[in-house]
Amino acid sequence: MTKPRAVYLQSGGPTAVLNASAQGAIETARRLGLSLYAAYDGLAGLLDGRLCDTDGVSDTAIAQLAFMPGGSFGVSRRMIGTFEEAPEDWLRLRDVLAKHDIHYLLINGGNGSLGCAERLVDFEKHTGYKLGVIGIPKTIDNDLVGTDNSPGYGSSAKFLASAMREVGLDMTSMGWGRVFIMETMGRHTGWLAAACAAASRNPHEAPHLLLLPEVPFDQARFLAALDASLAKYGQCAIAVAEGITGQDGRFVAEAKKSETYGHEQLGGAGHWLAQLILRERGISAHVAQVDYLQRAGGHLASATDVRQAYVMGERAVEWLLAGKTGLMAGIRRLNDHPYCWDVAEVPLSAVGDKEKRLPPEFIGADGFSVTQAFLDYVKPLIEGERIPPFKDGLPDYRPIAWPRV
Amino acid sequence: MTKPRAVYLQSGGPTAVLNASAQGAIETARRLGLSLYAAYDGLAGLLDGRLCDTDGVSDTAIAQLAFMPGGSFGVSRRMIGTFEEAPEDWLRLRDVLAKHDIHYLLINGGNGSLGCAERLVDFEKHTGYKLGVIGIPKTIDNDLVGTDNSPGYGSSAKFLASAMREVGLDMTSMGWGRVFIMETMGRHTGWLAAACAAASRNPHEAPHLLLLPEVPFDQARFLAALDASLAKYGQCAIAVAEGITGQDGRFVAEAKKSETYGHEQLGGAGHWLAQLILRERGISAHVAQVDYLQRAGGHLASATDVRQAYVMGERAVEWLLAGKTGLMAGIRRLNDHPYCWDVAEVPLSAVGDKEKRLPPEFIGADGFSVTQAFLDYVKPLIEGERIPPFKDGLPDYRPIAWPRV
Repeated sequence: MTKPRAVYLQSGGPTAVLNASAQGAIETARRLGLSLYAAYDGLAGLLDGRLCDTDGVSDTAIAQLAFMPGGSFGVSRRMIGTFEEAPEDWLRLRDVLAKHDIHYLLINGGNGSLGCAERLVDFEKHTGYKLGVIGIPKTIDNDLVGTDNSPGYGSSAKFLASAMREVGLDMTSMGWGRVFIMETMGRHTGWLAAACAAASRNPHEAPHLLLLPEVPFDQARFLAALDASLAKYGQCAIAVAEGITGQDGRFVAEAKKSETYGHEQLGGAGHWLAQLILRERGISAHVAQVDYLQRAGGHLASATDVRQAYVMGERAVEWLLAGKTGLMAGIRRLNDHPYCWDVAEVPLSAVGDKEKRLPPEFIGADGFSVTQAFLDYVKPLIEGERIPPFKDGLPDYRPIAWPRV
Repeated sequence: MTKPRAVYLQSGGPTAVLNASAQGAIETARRLGLSLYAAYDGLAGLLDGRLCDTDGVSDTAIAQLAFMPGGSFGVSRRMIGTFEEAPEDWLRLRDVLAKHDIHYLLINGGNGSLGCAERLVDFEKHTGYKLGVIGIPKTIDNDLVGTDNSPGYGSSAKFLASAMREVGLDMTSMGWGRVFIMETMGRHTGWLAAACAAASRNPHEAPHLLLLPEVPFDQARFLAALDASLAKYGQCAIAVAEGITGQDGRFVAEAKKSETYGHEQLGGAGHWLAQLILRERGISAHVAQVDYLQRAGGHLASATDVRQAYVMGERAVEWLLAGKTGLMAGIRRLNDHPYCWDVAEVPLSAVGDKEKRLPPEFIGADGFSVTQAFLDYVKPLIEGERIPPFKDGLPDYRPIAWPRV
């Protein structure tokens, strides 16, 4: 009897623990007798029929996925519409699946990718080809609904909060009057900028101000808060999400474009803010733009996050083999201290193409801070270290050459 | 009999291992019966008579300095001229030293600070007050002469190379055509940007191009190298020093100021480069500006660097008590593989106010790479991990409250 076969694909930007979900799926498939293929480069590769067979790779190599940032099979932002919108994609997909006798599909991605997964739940209805579909959550932005948090977020949060604590010590060395701005990712949500708050154990410790997309930027109020921080602590360390907007709802960094005589705006929200501070207060602020470092920091991955990413992949495979479909494996929080969680069956229809912003109860009354409720939320997610092996002074990540089929 | 007394000061920007030098000095002073004061905020604090007594702090607290980034006593960029230039500073300094019966001075800093140290060697001649002066090298820029490398550099190099390796995995996930720019510190020298090269184990791995201040930027040659990297590897990861200059010798990021209609240039060399690539090739490059993260990354300190920083502090105290003066403790490399080094007595007169750039034999013939000789040089410096204790998911740095005297 031939084994049933599934295909796994990754979608959207990588994270520090995306490969841990792949590891969970692969190891569980091995344990349960499922043949697991993966698509190179996400949905784009699947539609092109570019597949690899994970079965031929050694257990030792698979185990290393736990430590390795990036998306080992590649990712893409290719999406698929409804059957009515893109019947040719659906038929192409059916041909690829049929060619390899694949009847199970695992989609590991963010809200757009899980929206695709949701649409594909009706695959049999539209194509006559039986296909079970399960989603695995993934995004550093933490903006997925249906799950208490998203695998990937905890590790990015840990990286950013660690960096903020370290820079805080550096700033404190340098005496009074210093302003530092750390620009984090987060186009529409402030989960990552907010996470920096975990760095601070006392009011005087960095960060002092958080700028979140959930709170429209108000120049006068910001400058007053900056002044207050400088007066009280002699410094101001700011975490700013790339996607903060003005009162008009436009991204601040974009809003400036028209005002620079057609010149492309250089830098993002962080540099825009630094320029504002220079103009209004005569202070040269230092700007760190963390960019890909915050989602690729495998050397500082959260053990909680690695574990959750793994379990999501594991559970997804178990559910497929149990005949379930149309679900995402979601994290359900049972308790903050001690942190307890389990896995919930979340209908894909409740997840795809939606976005979870910081709720009001997580944002401080001043609009520049977070509440204790947020700290209680985020702290368990950054708990535990998962230090990779090092060689020659650097993390010894060993990319896997997946065998093409 | 009262103990002899020394004062220790830190100068210039902090590093991940500056406190390890302080630890070496303090623990050695305790061992050898020297009373050790420290100046708050470097030379500025010393001239103001703002001092603390390290003797009253527990051994346990001192041991934690090995892990903590920043400069625990504070730093300043305050310098002191020659006696002829600034007699009032010299007399103020004499009064502070005399008040506390201090006859030994330890200056932990970069080339400007060690230039001060050099000038103060003649303290007795000008003021009649006996003072032994020893310098301890410190700078992430690695531009000090008289020492094979500078404490601080190895840890920053390790941070940057680790980040480059991790981002390289992230980029590779995302498929063809990606350009990533990581802007490192380095106003005049390319040691930090060059260190990123340690990340690459194969030609296809990041980084693909290094832009060093030692090589004037040539747009046509750069674009050709970019095109070649994209054609060959499908991507281009670039490490650029903040201080790269055009053929006219001006910083590229500054040179543009006049061309932006009086608008302040936002971002630095990295954003400038991204704009060039967008204009000339239509590719949106991602930019990371690592800023303070690269010098505060205590969680990724190099064990070699921590050890060397410690030993420099240790040796400086030993030399003072042996009656030596006018020296800097320098690192002398005895062998690359295995890495062996000892401590050389370097006359301060050979060090102060000088600058060591990347020598030609370390720069690849194409101007965008380093040679094997550089890799042999840098690799031992990033060797070994010194992971700090973690608590609640973050490095558990515990700032010390130094007792004021």
